[in-house]
Amino acid sequence: MARWQPGARERLERAALELFLERGFAETTVPEITARAGLTTRTFFRYFADKREVLFGDEKELPELVARLVAGAPLSWDPMPVAVHGLRTLAAEVFDGRVDHVRTRRAVIDADEGLRERELRKLSRLAETMRAALHARGVDLVTATIAADLALTVFRLAVARWLDEEGRRPLGEVIEEMLRAVRSVATEIREPPSAVMAEETS
Amino acid sequence: MARWQPGARERLERAALELFLERGFAETTVPEITARAGLTTRTFFRYFADKREVLFGDEKELPELVARLVAGAPLSWDPMPVAVHGLRTLAAEVFDGRVDHVRTRRAVIDADEGLRERELRKLSRLAETMRAALHARGVDLVTATIAADLALTVFRLAVARWLDEEGRRPLGEVIEEMLRAVRSVATEIREPPSAVMAEETS
Repeated sequence: MARWQPGARERLERAALELFLERGFAETTVPEITARAGLTTRTFFRYFADKREVLFGDEKELPELVARLVAGAPLSWDPMPVAVHGLRTLAAEVFDGRVDHVRTRRAVIDADEGLRERELRKLSRLAETMRAALHARGVDLVTATIAADLALTVFRLAVARWLDEEGRRPLGEVIEEMLRAVRSVATEIREPPSAVMAEETS
Repeated sequence: MARWQPGARERLERAALELFLERGFAETTVPEITARAGLTTRTFFRYFADKREVLFGDEKELPELVARLVAGAPLSWDPMPVAVHGLRTLAAEVFDGRVDHVRTRRAVIDADEGLRERELRKLSRLAETMRAALHARGVDLVTATIAADLALTVFRLAVARWLDEEGRRPLGEVIEEMLRAVRSVATEIREPPSAVMAEETS
């Protein structure tokens, strides 16, 4: 264990994010990252397969955490409370207290088309994991898909607002606010006004 | 106009989809497509920039149609009815009567990782267009994002069920059913049961 440097992973992450932001993701090399962190490239490759993994290293852990949380919730709970319970725990365990890291990561991803697509896939897989975990509890597939999609919408909106507010409130509180907003918009669903009305003004 | 062969686009589309399904997307060449359609490669390139465009040729038109529909809806309508109006029109104009085409296209895309990602991006852009069009009507960004995401969830679920049922009902009718399901799941949103309860059973 002695060859694992204490805090090496965090130092590499911080150095990489700084460089990605300063120079762009594509322009940054692993030796530049390790030079800034004061560590060797060998150490880098103990923690990350490549520089992309600095941004997406939790791509497997997050779905696993979500799957465990959904599976572990009481069987008497309805799908939405189960999904919400998953989001709140994710917020507290993975996001709260890390606003600078999350904001820098977001800025790096927003600046690169390829990274934006990878992030889109990551979120899509997270929703897919939640859908499968709800279905495994006996929830029908349509309801499971809806609950997972609503949860993802709430999560994306909540993280965006939480970042705008620079993490002043716990993310879980912002999630509650966005859940109320989703509920309010969804209750507007009703039969649309007649087509005649649409033609009058279009 | 005489050099545009009548029905050429449809013949090329049908031949391409058949071949993609039989041999796989990656393995199919443009000359194979034109040979099956009984047309020249020159004709092919009048309609499509490459074979991928046979599957994603409506990638620009669909968002434009959605943007027009949202902009044209009466200003007095709430965001969800506007989004639903857009979905229903899209269903009637682009999907109804084309179940074989839509199902074959879906099977081709499901069989190829790269095409699945492209489809994910296409849907994400469609939601983004709807969000922007709702915002342009004066809807705040959070509400616009929620309405667009709900609409996309409804649309994906409705198309999947409509395909399962082999297009026996108009897609608009399936959309209504999925809207009711989303409304029902969203009304389950409330404060989650206490953490103590969660610990008892997990």
